[in-house]
Amino acid sequence: MLIAEISQLTGTPPATIKYYVREGLLPQGTRLAGNRTEYGEEHVRRLRLIRALLEVGQLSISTAAEVIAVLDQADAPIGHAFSIAQDALARSSVSGVALPSEAALARIDALASRAGWRNCGDNVGRGVAARVLDAYTGAEFALSDDYLDHYASAATLAAEADLSAVAEQDGRSRMIELMVIGTVLSDTLAIGLRRMAQAEMTSARGLI
Amino acid sequence: MLIAEISQLTGTPPATIKYYVREGLLPQGTRLAGNRTEYGEEHVRRLRLIRALLEVGQLSISTAAEVIAVLDQADAPIGHAFSIAQDALARSSVSGVALPSEAALARIDALASRAGWRNCGDNVGRGVAARVLDAYTGAEFALSDDYLDHYASAATLAAEADLSAVAEQDGRSRMIELMVIGTVLSDTLAIGLRRMAQAEMTSARGLI
Repeated sequence: MLIAEISQLTGTPPATIKYYVREGLLPQGTRLAGNRTEYGEEHVRRLRLIRALLEVGQLSISTAAEVIAVLDQADAPIGHAFSIAQDALARSSVSGVALPSEAALARIDALASRAGWRNCGDNVGRGVAARVLDAYTGAEFALSDDYLDHYASAATLAAEADLSAVAEQDGRSRMIELMVIGTVLSDTLAIGLRRMAQAEMTSARGLI
Repeated sequence: MLIAEISQLTGTPPATIKYYVREGLLPQGTRLAGNRTEYGEEHVRRLRLIRALLEVGQLSISTAAEVIAVLDQADAPIGHAFSIAQDALARSSVSGVALPSEAALARIDALASRAGWRNCGDNVGRGVAARVLDAYTGAEFALSDDYLDHYASAATLAAEADLSAVAEQDGRSRMIELMVIGTVLSDTLAIGLRRMAQAEMTSARGLI
């Protein structure tokens, strides 16, 4: 299909499609005679993915480009692809120059130990979670171990669902695609559902 | 204390402190003779909160201002304060003009019904979660009900911890403050811990 058709099909203006190609988010189409370009089904799917990452996942263009680059590394081990996507996404989830304190890192390590997690000591999530603890401390709130353990149990439930969904996919390129997309989109799913559960409990406890 | 002292104590440049005052994030200090301004302990705590919202919560200046305005409405019901903060945060968690499809909203309503949630039909999280389902559909992934139910259980665990932590606070202004801060910061906590749990399970299942 030509650019006007893929533009209409995906609701993306032609200038935006060309911008995504320039930024490396979308592969080039096939050049035809007369300065026209042919796009295929894989471009439609990729365009929908790009919009999901930017609008629902709230990624920057450069982070989206890093995440999408993982999809194109067809020969990387699946766990490695996961790790690259996680690194790119973690950098976008906390900003500023502050490093987590040693005390906060030690609390996250203790939490991981209580949860039985033995293989995530160098995961980017450790620093992200520790930065959150420091931010609570700065606002003079002390979170209990019980609070953190509830969040660790919630994370375990979510990750179990993530890994099961990945295992059900047909073929490794779809598995990697779901790992990457799922890392972005299900963050937002968890945010939406937590809001609903908070509303439910605030109401049930008579706080409204 | 004067601006140089609060700047050093919080690691925030004086020009940035003045910018936060102009944008309504930070209350004005007390004017002294000689064009100097006196800041107090409440400014220190508020400055740490602002940085947590901007750096760890990744809020825009305008969304942070809306969230902070909730803290200053000392006479609002607690549940109402929660709802205002949630609305401001939900608008920042999904962008773009697309509305969720009716089919996606119906799936989220069915999920809420299975989870026993009866009081969150007008919560902003419903539209956020439905937009995520549409994004998965656009990328041609079908999430199972089992996947969604795992995420609903995770949201319930997190919200239980949130509400218990709020109930433990001393006085309603601290309760509202924790609701607002917790809505922002614990989104990021959940993201960090989910990354760690994913790494643990990817490793445990031999995918790395």
